[in-house]
Amino acid sequence: MKQHENCTFASGARRKAMARFQMEKTPRFAHAARRYWPAAALTVTLMAAAPALGADHVAGPLVLKAQGSFFVGGRTEHTDATTGTPGGFFFPNADYIQVDQMYVQFQIPEASGKHVPVVMLHGCCLSGKTWETTPDGRMGWGEYFVRQRHAVYIPDQSSRARSGFDATIINEVRIGTQPPSALPNTFTFGRNAAWELFRFGPAFPTAFSDQQFPVEAMDTFGKQVIPDLNATLPTPNPTWANLAALAAQLHGAVLMGHSESGFFPEEAALTDPSGVAGLVSIEGLCSTNLTPEQVATLAKIPTLVIFGDHLGDVPSVSALWLGALQGCQQFVDQINAAGGDATMLHLPDAGLFGNSHMLMQDKNNLQVADLILSWIDKHVERK
Amino acid sequence: MKQHENCTFASGARRKAMARFQMEKTPRFAHAARRYWPAAALTVTLMAAAPALGADHVAGPLVLKAQGSFFVGGRTEHTDATTGTPGGFFFPNADYIQVDQMYVQFQIPEASGKHVPVVMLHGCCLSGKTWETTPDGRMGWGEYFVRQRHAVYIPDQSSRARSGFDATIINEVRIGTQPPSALPNTFTFGRNAAWELFRFGPAFPTAFSDQQFPVEAMDTFGKQVIPDLNATLPTPNPTWANLAALAAQLHGAVLMGHSESGFFPEEAALTDPSGVAGLVSIEGLCSTNLTPEQVATLAKIPTLVIFGDHLGDVPSVSALWLGALQGCQQFVDQINAAGGDATMLHLPDAGLFGNSHMLMQDKNNLQVADLILSWIDKHVERK
Repeated sequence: MKQHENCTFASGARRKAMARFQMEKTPRFAHAARRYWPAAALTVTLMAAAPALGADHVAGPLVLKAQGSFFVGGRTEHTDATTGTPGGFFFPNADYIQVDQMYVQFQIPEASGKHVPVVMLHGCCLSGKTWETTPDGRMGWGEYFVRQRHAVYIPDQSSRARSGFDATIINEVRIGTQPPSALPNTFTFGRNAAWELFRFGPAFPTAFSDQQFPVEAMDTFGKQVIPDLNATLPTPNPTWANLAALAAQLHGAVLMGHSESGFFPEEAALTDPSGVAGLVSIEGLCSTNLTPEQVATLAKIPTLVIFGDHLGDVPSVSALWLGALQGCQQFVDQINAAGGDATMLHLPDAGLFGNSHMLMQDKNNLQVADLILSWIDKHVERK
Repeated sequence: MKQHENCTFASGARRKAMARFQMEKTPRFAHAARRYWPAAALTVTLMAAAPALGADHVAGPLVLKAQGSFFVGGRTEHTDATTGTPGGFFFPNADYIQVDQMYVQFQIPEASGKHVPVVMLHGCCLSGKTWETTPDGRMGWGEYFVRQRHAVYIPDQSSRARSGFDATIINEVRIGTQPPSALPNTFTFGRNAAWELFRFGPAFPTAFSDQQFPVEAMDTFGKQVIPDLNATLPTPNPTWANLAALAAQLHGAVLMGHSESGFFPEEAALTDPSGVAGLVSIEGLCSTNLTPEQVATLAKIPTLVIFGDHLGDVPSVSALWLGALQGCQQFVDQINAAGGDATMLHLPDAGLFGNSHMLMQDKNNLQVADLILSWIDKHVERK
C-alpha cells in the first residue's frame, strides 16, 4: 500500500471531493483511454458517447485566429548601474529601466467558441517552456489546450526568462558599491536534486518502475532549468498582480500555477478577483492562514488542486510533499466549508499512477490535461 | 543631404550591389506598396504582376503544420553553488547542471513548399521576443515569415531568457568563495541609452521626424530589454556552434543575426557551413580580418547585410554606426571579390527612410521583411 493512502489527513471531505471527481471525469477519461489504448477503442466507444472535442484535434493542422506576445505590468525605475564595467560603453551608467513586467505569449484557436482562456504559469527554475514540447518531443499542454479550443496565455514569471530582471544589484556588487551579501540568492535545481524533488525516483538515476516522466530525456529536461531571480523582486511578488491584471484584461480566465507558483493564482485572486474565472494549483503549496474575508473571496471561484503520485516515496522530500498535500486538502476543505467549489485531484485516486511533479510533461500528460479540461467544462464554463 | 550619402566608403562595389538590389526588389516592393498604401492599389496592380505570396497571408487564420520548442547544444557541468544560501534547501549545494544550451521555438506553416527555413536570432539585451508582436501591437517578422511560407526558428541566445544561464559565479561571490570582481558584467540598455544607440532620435525624448520606430511605445519596448549574461559563457560563444548545429539539423537554413549577433551567422558558418544556406546580418558588425580560407568558405553562402537610416545622425553613436556600415561594406566587397554573392542593403538606398536599429519592429517592418524575402527568393532558393 502506498504511503499516501495511509495518511491521516485523507479526511472525509477530501474523500468526498475525490468521489465527486471520479463521477465527473468519466466521459473525457474514457475518451482519453480510447486515444492512448487503441485496442480498447471499440469497447470504450460503446461505453460512452464521444465528447465534442478529442483525438482528431491532437493531430492535423493547427489553425489559429491569432497569436503573439505582450507584457503585463512593469514600472520605470532609475538605476545607477546598467553595467558592471563603468566607462565600457558610450553612456553614463545611470539610466531608466523597466522592471517587474511579465512577458506573456498567447495563441487563440480559430474555433474557440465560448471556451474560457487558460493562463499557464511555470514553477521554480523554469520558464514558459514548461508547457511546450516535452523533453522527449511530445505535445505540451499549451498547444493541446489550444487544440481543445481554449485560448492559452503562457507567461514567464516576472524576473524570469523573457520577462527580464533587474541586474542593478549584481553590477553594484561588481563595482563595489554594495557588499557580496547583497547579491540575490540565485538558486537552481541540479540534476540530482531535481530527480528527488520532482519524484522521478528515490535517487538519481533510479526511477520508479511506473514512472511517467520521460527520464530518458533527463539531460534535455535539465536544459530548461533556469536560475531563479525572484529574490531581486519587491514584496509582494509583482507576478501576483500581473496575473490578476492579465485575467481582468481577458475578461475572465482560468489561472493555473505549478510548484513554486502553485499558490500564485490564489494570490492573484486575492489581489483582484474580477477576472479570475477559475484557479488550478498543480503540485504547489496552498494558503492555510486565510482570513474569513479571503476565504469568502476564494469561495466564489471554482478551484482545482492537483497532485501526482509517489508523494511519500522519496525519503528526502516526503515530508515536503505529504505536507503540501495536507495543506492543500485543508485549503480545499476550508473553501468548501464556506460554500465554495474546490476539488482535490490526487491523480492516483483518479486511476492515474506514476505521475511526477512535472506531470504536464509526463508520458500521460494529455490524460491529465483531459481531467483538467473536464473540470473546466463542468465547474467553470457551466457555472 | 544625409551624412551617409556623403560617406567616402560608399565604394563603387557598394553602389553596384545597391543597384543590383534595386533592380531585384521591384515586384515585392510594389506589392508592399499596395499593402501599405491602399489608395495606390489599382495603379500598382497594373504596374506589376502580383507575386504568389502576399497580403492575403497577413490577415486571416494562421495554419500551422507543426510548432514547438527544443534545445540545441549544451553540456553537463558540475557546480558547487546551485544556491547562494547553502543549507537553505534539502540538498547539498554541489550538483550537475546543463549549461550553454540554446532554446529554439519554431513554427512550420501548413504550406511551406520548398521554402528555406529561417532562423532569427536577437541582439544584445533582448530575446526571441524581438521577432514577435511589436511594442505597438503589430505583427512581427516571426509570424510574417511563417505566413510567407517559411518555417521559422527563433532562439534565445545561450545564457539569455529561456536558454537559462550558469549562475554559479553569482552564488560563489554571495557565499564568499569568489571576489566581487569575478562577477560577470551584466549589462543592459536603459531608456536614454537605447534611444540614442538605436537611433530613435538625437536624444530622449526627441525623435527624428521620419522615425519609423513606434516611439510612442517606448516603455513597452523597454520591457523586452533583458540583462546580457554572455560574460558567463566560455570562449568561443557557444551560440555560434549551436546556430551551426541548428542549421545542419534543418538540412539548410538562412541564419539571421541582429546587432550584437549580426556576425553570429558568419561565425556559425565558419564553425560548420554544411547547413548554412544563407546569411543575413542586420545592423551588426562584420568580420574584417578574415583569412583567405574563411573568405572562401563564406563566398559559397549568399549573404545579405542590412542597415537602417540615420546612421550618422545621432552624435553619441555616429562613429559606431558609420564604422559598422564601413566595415560591413568591406566585408561584402571581400566576399564578392572572392566570387561570392554578398549584398549590402542600406535601406535609404532602397527608398525606405527613417528606419531605426530595431527595423524588425519599425512601422514599415513588413516592407523591410519583403525585401529580405525577395532576396531569399532570388539568392538562396533559386541558387
